[in-house]
Amino acid sequence: MDKILRIDVGSQGGPKAVETGLGDYEGLGGRAMTSGIISKEVPPLCHPLGADNKLVIAPGMLSGSAAAMSGRLSVGCKSPLTGGIKESNSGGQGAQVLARLGYAAIVLEGKPSNDTLYKVVINHDGVKIEADNSLKMLGNYDLVDKIKDTYGEKFCSISIGPAGEMKLSAATIAITDMEQRPTRHAGRGGVGAVMGSKGIKAIILDDTGCKMRKPKDPEAFKAANKEFVAGIKKHPVSGEGLPAFGTNVLTNVLNEAGGYPTRNFSSGQFEGAGKISGETLAELETSRGGKATHGCHTGCIIKCSGTFHDKDGNYLTKQPEYETIWAHGGNCCIDDLDAIAMLDRLDDDFGIDTIEMGATIGVAMEAGLAEFGDAEAAINFVKQVGEGTPLGRILGNGAEVTGKVFGVERIPVVKGQAMPAYDPRAVQGIGVTYATTTQGADHTAGYAVATNILGVGGNVDALKPEGQIELSRNLQIATAAIDATGMCLFIAFPILDQPETFQALVDLLNGFHGLSLTADDVSALGKSILTKEREFNAGAGFTSKHDRLPEYFKNEKLAPHGVTFTVSDEELDQVFNW
Amino acid sequence: MDKILRIDVGSQGGPKAVETGLGDYEGLGGRAMTSGIISKEVPPLCHPLGADNKLVIAPGMLSGSAAAMSGRLSVGCKSPLTGGIKESNSGGQGAQVLARLGYAAIVLEGKPSNDTLYKVVINHDGVKIEADNSLKMLGNYDLVDKIKDTYGEKFCSISIGPAGEMKLSAATIAITDMEQRPTRHAGRGGVGAVMGSKGIKAIILDDTGCKMRKPKDPEAFKAANKEFVAGIKKHPVSGEGLPAFGTNVLTNVLNEAGGYPTRNFSSGQFEGAGKISGETLAELETSRGGKATHGCHTGCIIKCSGTFHDKDGNYLTKQPEYETIWAHGGNCCIDDLDAIAMLDRLDDDFGIDTIEMGATIGVAMEAGLAEFGDAEAAINFVKQVGEGTPLGRILGNGAEVTGKVFGVERIPVVKGQAMPAYDPRAVQGIGVTYATTTQGADHTAGYAVATNILGVGGNVDALKPEGQIELSRNLQIATAAIDATGMCLFIAFPILDQPETFQALVDLLNGFHGLSLTADDVSALGKSILTKEREFNAGAGFTSKHDRLPEYFKNEKLAPHGVTFTVSDEELDQVFNW
Repeated sequence: MDKILRIDVGSQGGPKAVETGLGDYEGLGGRAMTSGIISKEVPPLCHPLGADNKLVIAPGMLSGSAAAMSGRLSVGCKSPLTGGIKESNSGGQGAQVLARLGYAAIVLEGKPSNDTLYKVVINHDGVKIEADNSLKMLGNYDLVDKIKDTYGEKFCSISIGPAGEMKLSAATIAITDMEQRPTRHAGRGGVGAVMGSKGIKAIILDDTGCKMRKPKDPEAFKAANKEFVAGIKKHPVSGEGLPAFGTNVLTNVLNEAGGYPTRNFSSGQFEGAGKISGETLAELETSRGGKATHGCHTGCIIKCSGTFHDKDGNYLTKQPEYETIWAHGGNCCIDDLDAIAMLDRLDDDFGIDTIEMGATIGVAMEAGLAEFGDAEAAINFVKQVGEGTPLGRILGNGAEVTGKVFGVERIPVVKGQAMPAYDPRAVQGIGVTYATTTQGADHTAGYAVATNILGVGGNVDALKPEGQIELSRNLQIATAAIDATGMCLFIAFPILDQPETFQALVDLLNGFHGLSLTADDVSALGKSILTKEREFNAGAGFTSKHDRLPEYFKNEKLAPHGVTFTVSDEELDQVFNW
Repeated sequence: MDKILRIDVGSQGGPKAVETGLGDYEGLGGRAMTSGIISKEVPPLCHPLGADNKLVIAPGMLSGSAAAMSGRLSVGCKSPLTGGIKESNSGGQGAQVLARLGYAAIVLEGKPSNDTLYKVVINHDGVKIEADNSLKMLGNYDLVDKIKDTYGEKFCSISIGPAGEMKLSAATIAITDMEQRPTRHAGRGGVGAVMGSKGIKAIILDDTGCKMRKPKDPEAFKAANKEFVAGIKKHPVSGEGLPAFGTNVLTNVLNEAGGYPTRNFSSGQFEGAGKISGETLAELETSRGGKATHGCHTGCIIKCSGTFHDKDGNYLTKQPEYETIWAHGGNCCIDDLDAIAMLDRLDDDFGIDTIEMGATIGVAMEAGLAEFGDAEAAINFVKQVGEGTPLGRILGNGAEVTGKVFGVERIPVVKGQAMPAYDPRAVQGIGVTYATTTQGADHTAGYAVATNILGVGGNVDALKPEGQIELSRNLQIATAAIDATGMCLFIAFPILDQPETFQALVDLLNGFHGLSLTADDVSALGKSILTKEREFNAGAGFTSKHDRLPEYFKNEKLAPHGVTFTVSDEELDQVFNW
């Protein structure tokens, strides 16, 4: 991981690849790398689909090593959805394979002079870029099948579906999993549209012949990894809840807490929650021959994923995540797991963010385009996105555009990005994160749900403003650092509760890189990432006025608790005052 | 003009009218009134279509008097198009009639609890508000005909078409002219959507039995008006060019200057300009029995308007304005005046901004939805807006949304509002105004074209950055003040060139209101309006980063002069540093 691959898609005669050293970016990984390059090289006021934007794909500091859980890939750019900086983070095989191929980052830059579509093939022998218009408008599943015909069963692909080619603001970048299925996505913020604007359909990675990255201090590293694995296994969330029921274990939890956004954020409980809960899902999956416990990348020991088979027992999609099931389910009052799984499959195939898509359908339903609960209409909406009809293009540009186009006032977005599956009135800590993170409404940027609802990392009353600023601040700092390591965010549960597991993470970094970081250094890393991101956003015109929830969260009471969001604007402005 | 009519559309049982005194708003008119109320009463971060936004309709300080040219109406709100403060300004009979009825402002506030549509009837006897769902989705022309059936031939109506009811961000408010045709529009910034969000379809004004407003010093006022009229008549622009050929006299002028945005702002000259010029238009109008010289409101002596008849000699629309003919014409490479007139008629009927609509069609054509020059496609696009199809709703939300939905990079907007008919690269002074005005790209906010191209108010080289900041600053200050008086902006030509005509305007204000204002006081009025507007926008999250043109104006050279926009960011930030 000592080189950066830069591909200038604006070169005469088609995209041209150049390898460089790390230069200023030495030692960075994941989100530290993507936000480092974007904040330094991209003019904040540029058009997200123009020549000056860049797409950066970076494995984490520990990716490609033997460290457990180290397979997260960061994708960065100026976001077409938010207009601010974006780091979108994905599982799948991308990070491990890219790291083993030796690349600390791939940077797509410039602007193509025509609409030829290209694929980039990277293996032990080097980089090849080929025009291939036969890939145009292929869904990710068909695309991967087609790649298999040529490149066999060993590659990992990083690709866009039709949504990315159409440059829709909710388009994702798909990363294949261990079964070469395009089920893992850098989902948020429209990173797929930026890849589409660069004219690159797929990056095909094959690390055959490449070795696992070696630690500088193998003994220390091995010991730390052992402690780290033990810590993950012994924590009830990462060791029990997530493996058994996946992320969807949260449906019943959030619904009981009254923080499950229902009917486009107009209630905090969904009467059909039991029908789509993690418990129900796991049972259904197992009964049809799917898996309820499965990892998304090499080195995963939590295994929060699974596979979902249709009624005939055939693979349909990976186990849909909690946020996906909420977005298409409770938020749209749909309580049919088969319909939700079909929506998940379609989203993955077209390359569209499941959270943004579900929130958008909720807004469309509020606009009267369909009744809440109409699963068939929801499926039709997503199909229209894939087809690129005018309605599909509206929906594929997310909740804010859809709300604007149809004159809806209740649009659950911050900085143009739709809120995920936690109502900020009933989980006030996550409301602080939604409002203030550089990313637009994003639960993963500072997952205060852990402490507000799950009692991880202490206890802060979810319904009150007290303590939420400090909670979100500390989580945002820690998360930025974790996102730099390549570690799955679910390690946060054990490291928040178990000091020895946190120390094991620091020891992993030190053992691998031959460093002597302390906890303070990790915190400093997180702060430095956030500072760069905020500077970029300020340059793009963001102010404290953008660090706010839509006003209806302050005015409309949420059932069953009758709560509004009560953290004050003055408090919100203190999040980054560390 | 000693009272304000406030209509709370959120009252139980339907909208409720209350008359109040002027209070804090004593002495204000037009834009000073609208921006005064909005900046004081509307939370800058509110949703433009929500309960907290207000729609303010205000005649000018001299409206309803015998002063020539005093019939402009200001409409203010938080704009659904820009997200900032908006003053949209219209001719027609509205200002004169409303002022004679004694109202300094009508304020629509609150949010309706259902979708019943109301009409407000105001006459000498008072205010009546009636539910009338039979008006739903009527075009402005049919609406006015229907009103005539009940209210006769004396009223003036202020209404929205289907676009306003659908709350599209480019929706206008139509004001009837002297012939009771809905041809005058508060066009920019989506004010019609805000009226639609308040559930008010039409405000029907009848000043029968009301008297002309009386000056405090009749002799001084009469003398000033005489001097003012003489000044307007003797200036070549207001006395000759505008009466003879209307605003469209500018087509040949701008085209020859290489500043006529063509093919979605990709060239500065249009080969078909001669076919759609003011000279050609006037001849065509006259030959078909229409008028080439006609006023839009009582008291107009410039008479820059006219009537356009179709091939069979039947009235089709008013004389389309220069900006309309450019937007639908040169910008879309359409050189057919009949098609352009039909587009103007459809825009007026549906209640949609001609500038935003034409710029949007240019973006749609760039996206490949139709060929440039395809008039039939353009007409079909606008019809879809009226019908509210998904494509129509996209287009009806303006150029920025359309560009986003279809992944277009070249979107000619500032603060979300489309640029009018002057390319900022070849008319750099207007570029400064586009970038920095509180209103989003708006030529009327500081019409530097006068000095850059027409040699009015001095000479500043249109192609160079020197002098443009001071020019735009002074014009923005003067314009804000003029917009407060109710005067038509075309008085700017004589008052810029003829000190005695400027003094006559000051004397008109003094004679009417019994004041002793100086030129400095007029300037202070303009500055105070701009300051309030900028404070509102800052509260809505606007910074200097929003006072910028899209980057391609700095990078793409405009033919035939090969120029880019060269006023620096640092200079732009000095516009309001007076």
